[in-house]
Amino acid sequence: MAKLRAVIIGATGLAGQQFIAALRSHPFLELAGLAASPRNAGKSYADALRAPSGMMGWFLTEPLPEEVASMPVQNGADVRAQDYDLAFTAVEADVARELEPRLAQHIPVVSTASAFRYDEDVPLLIPPVNADHAPLVREQRRRRGTKGFIVPIPNCTVMGLAITLAPLHQHFGVRAVLMTSLQAMSGAGRSPGVIGLDITDNVIPFIPKEEQKVEVEAKKILGTFDGGASVHPLDVKVSCTCTRVPVLEGHTESVFVSLARRATVQDAARVMREWRGAEGTDRLPSAPGSWIQVHDDPFRPQPRLDRDAQGGMATTVGRLREDEVLENGLKYVLVSHNTKMGAARGAVLVAELLHARGLLAG
Amino acid sequence: MAKLRAVIIGATGLAGQQFIAALRSHPFLELAGLAASPRNAGKSYADALRAPSGMMGWFLTEPLPEEVASMPVQNGADVRAQDYDLAFTAVEADVARELEPRLAQHIPVVSTASAFRYDEDVPLLIPPVNADHAPLVREQRRRRGTKGFIVPIPNCTVMGLAITLAPLHQHFGVRAVLMTSLQAMSGAGRSPGVIGLDITDNVIPFIPKEEQKVEVEAKKILGTFDGGASVHPLDVKVSCTCTRVPVLEGHTESVFVSLARRATVQDAARVMREWRGAEGTDRLPSAPGSWIQVHDDPFRPQPRLDRDAQGGMATTVGRLREDEVLENGLKYVLVSHNTKMGAARGAVLVAELLHARGLLAG
Amino acid sequence: MAKLRAVIIGATGLAGQQFIAALRSHPFLELAGLAASPRNAGKSYADALRAPSGMMGWFLTEPLPEEVASMPVQNGADVRAQDYDLAFTAVEADVARELEPRLAQHIPVVSTASAFRYDEDVPLLIPPVNADHAPLVREQRRRRGTKGFIVPIPNCTVMGLAITLAPLHQHFGVRAVLMTSLQAMSGAGRSPGVIGLDITDNVIPFIPKEEQKVEVEAKKILGTFDGGASVHPLDVKVSCTCTRVPVLEGHTESVFVSLARRATVQDAARVMREWRGAEGTDRLPSAPGSWIQVHDDPFRPQPRLDRDAQGGMATTVGRLREDEVLENGLKYVLVSHNTKMGAARGAVLVAELLHARGLLAG
Amino acid sequence: MAKLRAVIIGATGLAGQQFIAALRSHPFLELAGLAASPRNAGKSYADALRAPSGMMGWFLTEPLPEEVASMPVQNGADVRAQDYDLAFTAVEADVARELEPRLAQHIPVVSTASAFRYDEDVPLLIPPVNADHAPLVREQRRRRGTKGFIVPIPNCTVMGLAITLAPLHQHFGVRAVLMTSLQAMSGAGRSPGVIGLDITDNVIPFIPKEEQKVEVEAKKILGTFDGGASVHPLDVKVSCTCTRVPVLEGHTESVFVSLARRATVQDAARVMREWRGAEGTDRLPSAPGSWIQVHDDPFRPQPRLDRDAQGGMATTVGRLREDEVLENGLKYVLVSHNTKMGAARGAVLVAELLHARGLLAG
Repeated sequence: MAKLRAVIIGATGLAGQQFIAALRSHPFLELAGLAASPRNAGKSYADALRAPSGMMGWFLTEPLPEEVASMPVQNGADVRAQDYDLAFTAVEADVARELEPRLAQHIPVVSTASAFRYDEDVPLLIPPVNADHAPLVREQRRRRGTKGFIVPIPNCTVMGLAITLAPLHQHFGVRAVLMTSLQAMSGAGRSPGVIGLDITDNVIPFIPKEEQKVEVEAKKILGTFDGGASVHPLDVKVSCTCTRVPVLEGHTESVFVSLARRATVQDAARVMREWRGAEGTDRLPSAPGSWIQVHDDPFRPQPRLDRDAQGGMATTVGRLREDEVLENGLKYVLVSHNTKMGAARGAVLVAELLHARGLLAG
Repeated sequence: MAKLRAVIIGATGLAGQQFIAALRSHPFLELAGLAASPRNAGKSYADALRAPSGMMGWFLTEPLPEEVASMPVQNGADVRAQDYDLAFTAVEADVARELEPRLAQHIPVVSTASAFRYDEDVPLLIPPVNADHAPLVREQRRRRGTKGFIVPIPNCTVMGLAITLAPLHQHFGVRAVLMTSLQAMSGAGRSPGVIGLDITDNVIPFIPKEEQKVEVEAKKILGTFDGGASVHPLDVKVSCTCTRVPVLEGHTESVFVSLARRATVQDAARVMREWRGAEGTDRLPSAPGSWIQVHDDPFRPQPRLDRDAQGGMATTVGRLREDEVLENGLKYVLVSHNTKMGAARGAVLVAELLHARGLLAG
Repeated sequence: MAKLRAVIIGATGLAGQQFIAALRSHPFLELAGLAASPRNAGKSYADALRAPSGMMGWFLTEPLPEEVASMPVQNGADVRAQDYDLAFTAVEADVARELEPRLAQHIPVVSTASAFRYDEDVPLLIPPVNADHAPLVREQRRRRGTKGFIVPIPNCTVMGLAITLAPLHQHFGVRAVLMTSLQAMSGAGRSPGVIGLDITDNVIPFIPKEEQKVEVEAKKILGTFDGGASVHPLDVKVSCTCTRVPVLEGHTESVFVSLARRATVQDAARVMREWRGAEGTDRLPSAPGSWIQVHDDPFRPQPRLDRDAQGGMATTVGRLREDEVLENGLKYVLVSHNTKMGAARGAVLVAELLHARGLLAG
Repeated sequence: MAKLRAVIIGATGLAGQQFIAALRSHPFLELAGLAASPRNAGKSYADALRAPSGMMGWFLTEPLPEEVASMPVQNGADVRAQDYDLAFTAVEADVARELEPRLAQHIPVVSTASAFRYDEDVPLLIPPVNADHAPLVREQRRRRGTKGFIVPIPNCTVMGLAITLAPLHQHFGVRAVLMTSLQAMSGAGRSPGVIGLDITDNVIPFIPKEEQKVEVEAKKILGTFDGGASVHPLDVKVSCTCTRVPVLEGHTESVFVSLARRATVQDAARVMREWRGAEGTDRLPSAPGSWIQVHDDPFRPQPRLDRDAQGGMATTVGRLREDEVLENGLKYVLVSHNTKMGAARGAVLVAELLHARGLLAG
């Protein structure tokens, strides 16, 4: 069977690099094109990665595949959608706002950008959590008169949070969430990214727009879709403080949650451990053996030790305790890989879900 | 006037070093003796600081004063209380449990250890917050039949929290607190301390016993003392998650608080900024110009930039926002220097308060 | 074929952990026993790894294999050599001095300790560099009247240096070496190791005894063995300054070398790239595809990107330039993984060489 | 006496900030103007410091003085030299190439840029080392027909090196130098600077153009000026490898030096400690108590502990040893503050020298 031809737009950034790694040896997706900003158009991918200082911007520890190094890079604005079956985008919101609708005229676009996350006819997908929102793309096609569609994945900080809330919500009902994040530098990308002078021996207590994204997106992701014209957001209160810490990759989050019904620590650990996600999602090619790993060791999770659990696709939870302040309160700490499950590999997982549900082919 | 002669016990650790710095040029306290563990007894202070590897353990950036370098170090257990007017202790709780009562037979002991913090006749002092608890030492003397007494300061993590809650409580009433700390390495001391292999590019989500200390101590510190035999703890719910981050000094805390009466961000900022602390405490020699600095810049506070504000004695607050989840909710981030205000200089401040209130002289 | 039964002594340290990883799925070696210090004797390996704080000391990112977690840990001093075919030791020099001769009565001991490196009848092996020194163990057996023998591997800092000097010496003659190392924290192990307070935002310019080891060992490793009673050291001058930097793993070394005959950068790069090492060593099970990787990109090697090249067994070289100060001077930078090729996996490689040369079986 | 009015060009960068700090309470220099790139022209200094993310770019731990925060920032290209008595520049070489000659028509320009360092009629000044080169500015004025002149300070990496070589050269003759630097991040500035993703847990073995600068500048600085038309460079061979390490500020350098006459460690330590620098330079307002501090403790110098020695103006030396490889060889490690003595404060020191020698006033 011929593989589906995918183009990566925003290929030189960190998420773009993770897309390249995620498509290596994929069972039904093939890397067919690379695009980036105009200043890199016409260069080979290896040349496009080079910073003005001459420093190579390939960040992953696995070497850059040679056949990718020599691939030409297109200007994102010039990509011909008709040459591909699918686009993955990892660009800034303002670029996405122009680019993605144009591509979606013809092909499905799985996006890491926030540009369309809040549109009524756009599902915000984390396959194990809300695979049943996927059919909303039919409404989107109908309403916009396009052949393709846009499916964003959520902000990387809401990823692990929504995944851990999902089984809690299914069993006990989630009423309110207070979260403090300790986010990795890779979330800020490379240009300019977080400079070493600012973050070494330090914490930066603010990440512009991040907290609002978490608060709005969590409600939509955990909401319900009854086949109509939009997702009905979950009625849950979410409040958070997002900080940056001197960690390369892997977001850590300290979560306090209020449930509708009391859950013991054992109950909560059990429902997280046993959670298989939405029907069939645990058999998608990129799915980890378990969506959530729960540690009893109180010194876990740690981002350096746990971010790559199961290929960076599992969310790791620890320090599960009852909380006395909130009604039916629980507290825990989670680690989620922000550029794997939280970006590129999470988007590939969405493409796999769309494929499994027959929504990918035009 | 002759200065009061102070002995520092636990002088080789980080807090001990900060005590040495804090007593330099003090208006009425003088460094008269140094003590440490038996293996260092008989050495000069400079020799006692040396690790088995030969590496000098003086951690402060100001140089070790030469006259201190050559001072002899006693075995803590052999210190004769009668030779001093006052003792500052910075030892582990189990050592404190033996040592401090023996010293308190004769002289006041201001302690950074947790050993006696929870005893009924022992005040837990942060001068600006609860100077009025200080007279409880009279009851302690009476009950224990001692000439001196023991006054501990709180855990370093509760220090900035209690200071910021105090003006909020006075004006709006504090009902509940949910806090996540991002604590510096210096809080763990030097032997063994936090090893670089564990903390580089990482977060450690657990600090043994820390969370309980914060939860219990906050209630006692913010409690009321009516001149009787004990402090009446504040009826406030406190829940927290304490983590360690790759920061040298300065604890950062993300706080969510529920108030009895609603406060706007402007209200809260104003009462923090204007707070002078308990009567007269702002005139103590070590008092900062203001107990709390409030930043409007959302990128502050940062531990590296703010820990040393006003000699490490001020607590810096930023990111003040209303919180929608808690009733009359507020959220903010604070930075407090854990080995200055949170340990040695905070203890010296307590000695200054006792002196001002006539409680120091026997 | 039954595998050879190996015992790891010093199993709880970092090198010990790397031994465990290195023996997973080894073609002819099997992990048959674990030993550590007396205080851990009788515990399971998982329990023995736990620090007094309760924190688990497993440092590798691959999870601790469950069957190893439950293995009992013996007291190193009580290990019965007769129960094993081979011992790997990763203990301090003073412990090795007692332990290794006792084991060597019966079985071969491949050691990461420095205790016997400088004995006349002891080869100091890096298989690609000096496999022909291996038969010196026959002389050792004869002289000491033992059934087994002791073979140390060199200090981790000399590993990459000797490997890169070997092809240069073979082709151009090495006369003098000046080296500055930027060493990773893992080289200092875990107890006490390098504490985060000392190394964060810092460089420590001294590692006790390290420089002497490099200077003496390089000469012996690169020396000649003509079948007699000892190795004849190479007549080369070596001078170095060893520093510690805030890097988790992977030693970086800045090398200036004076050759007997001039070599261009191209010459030097070529002989390094083409070097296959001693006869047959490139076919040992743990051998990397190439012993030395040479980068043209001037921003390489970097320890975080290059330490794990080829399973941590390759030495990565970059910044090859001619040097005008030294006679026939060259300069370059290398990165070598200090706990893989520089310790555990390097020792396993030695065992593989001994096996291939028929020296392992008693 | 009216102070001399100084304008800082490149005021928003790290060196520019250090200039602002260095001119606070200066005895005869006053901050009279600030300039930066066109995009910041017209803003207040506080606004100009703000990054696109909104993050304030004031990097120093001392707070930004309020009267400076509100000063207007000019476009560097629009600065009217006639409004000032002196300019300090901290701009990129290509900007300096345009800007500095225009200013030098009218006023002295003390520059941290490399643009004119290698011109024949331009002295490259480190006051204690080569104050006698200063009169070359008269030749420069004559030849260029200007009222002012340009005096650059050297590259920050050559600063500590030249200072430590100076007394060695005076007493023993310096023949050859091999140096490996471990440079701090602040040397790369803030835009883009070194990103945290690249430097955390890492070493970067290349800093473009740095090594050539060190090699060329050291010879000129240590050269002789006999009152003619140019400096006669010292006949010394210099070779180096410059690396970047995860350190905020303070360059560390591992130096191997070959002398004309043998010096013992004691000799070398003594001449460094006793060195007062060129006539009268130790009485300049910014001069440290001693130009060079020599530690006997082998664990020093460390950049975090020693960079701020004597206001960041002293060079700290340790690990002095004889070297067996080089003829009359010595080796040592030094730490020098790269943005204080190595940039802004070093430039202010040059202005102080020019003033003392009567070269500053027009």
